[in-house]
Amino acid sequence: MENLAKHIDFILELDKLKTVKRKTMVLADNNRQENSAEHSWHIALMAQALVEYADEEIALDRVVSMLLIHDVVEIDAGDVFAFAHADEHSEQEQKEIAAANRIFGLLPAQQAQQFIALWLEFEQAQTADARFAKAMDRVLPVFQNMSNQGGSWSKHGVTKSQVIDRNIYLQKSAPKLWQYVLEQIELAVQNGWLKEA
Amino acid sequence: MENLAKHIDFILELDKLKTVKRKTMVLADNNRQENSAEHSWHIALMAQALVEYADEEIALDRVVSMLLIHDVVEIDAGDVFAFAHADEHSEQEQKEIAAANRIFGLLPAQQAQQFIALWLEFEQAQTADARFAKAMDRVLPVFQNMSNQGGSWSKHGVTKSQVIDRNIYLQKSAPKLWQYVLEQIELAVQNGWLKEA
Repeated sequence: MENLAKHIDFILELDKLKTVKRKTMVLADNNRQENSAEHSWHIALMAQALVEYADEEIALDRVVSMLLIHDVVEIDAGDVFAFAHADEHSEQEQKEIAAANRIFGLLPAQQAQQFIALWLEFEQAQTADARFAKAMDRVLPVFQNMSNQGGSWSKHGVTKSQVIDRNIYLQKSAPKLWQYVLEQIELAVQNGWLKEA
Repeated sequence: MENLAKHIDFILELDKLKTVKRKTMVLADNNRQENSAEHSWHIALMAQALVEYADEEIALDRVVSMLLIHDVVEIDAGDVFAFAHADEHSEQEQKEIAAANRIFGLLPAQQAQQFIALWLEFEQAQTADARFAKAMDRVLPVFQNMSNQGGSWSKHGVTKSQVIDRNIYLQKSAPKLWQYVLEQIELAVQNGWLKEA
């Protein structure tokens, strides 16, 4: 039962992701900030609902696994706002690699390696599965903010080009969603929810 | 793009699960009550970590899908405490069926039927996939409460036999975890976290 002790350590460690706050707001819950655990649930289920938009061949179970684990590193490294400065992202990357090694490293060795490899695949976004997973992670805040008078975009003065850059994975991975997002971004600019830049 | 409007309605509706509170507490976050969205994330990822304990042949991707959707009906029906009276559960069942039809019914018809069928399979717990999914849903609070001085058990005066009944899916689905849980329950009684009854 040595492995079980490791598994339980990992499972209890995961509880901490429920404390990591994102900028995106939960409209239904008095516009409180969303946490990374509930966000991860939302995009994993969303990937299943939106799979028909995938334009590349994907393995949905791998996409879902990536989405379930993609933010776990934030337990140590925290959430950096999507539209933070580039140098902040670079420092974040080092923290996240250390976090992945520590947190997935709580698991038995072989399983730890599998989770770390899957997380790296997501981060590097060089496979169809990772691109679709990234696309899901990025497009959900578009839906959320458009239904919430600009939500975190309005609150933090985000620009049109920042949102376009961030959603670029859609272009190859899910072109119909990409077209939709481009339209929504124009609408957001017209509504004053995104800055024209 | 008629389907996309339906998909987005469904995705935005899911946001509401983040407002549904469970009795289980998040130790790392000042012992606040856990919500059903973050709980669903936790057990979906846990199922992947614990798959080696499955004693029956299971399709992990189906188990994960069930866990991601299993609580969505609570958006309309609310969460009923695991250890509530039986007649409360029966009324809840009718509410949940109506909720499944309404919420999954936001999706295009064929997809709605698939999600409703998967949710019913989970509820009925007659397949190996559903049994393992139920086992995950039930065992996580055991880990959480044991790490939190009895947590929701202590707070609500739960008894040993209630926890045993609730975790019975483990017996067939994951017998090694079942043995572990029985030991933990004894320990909880000794510690005064569960009532001996």
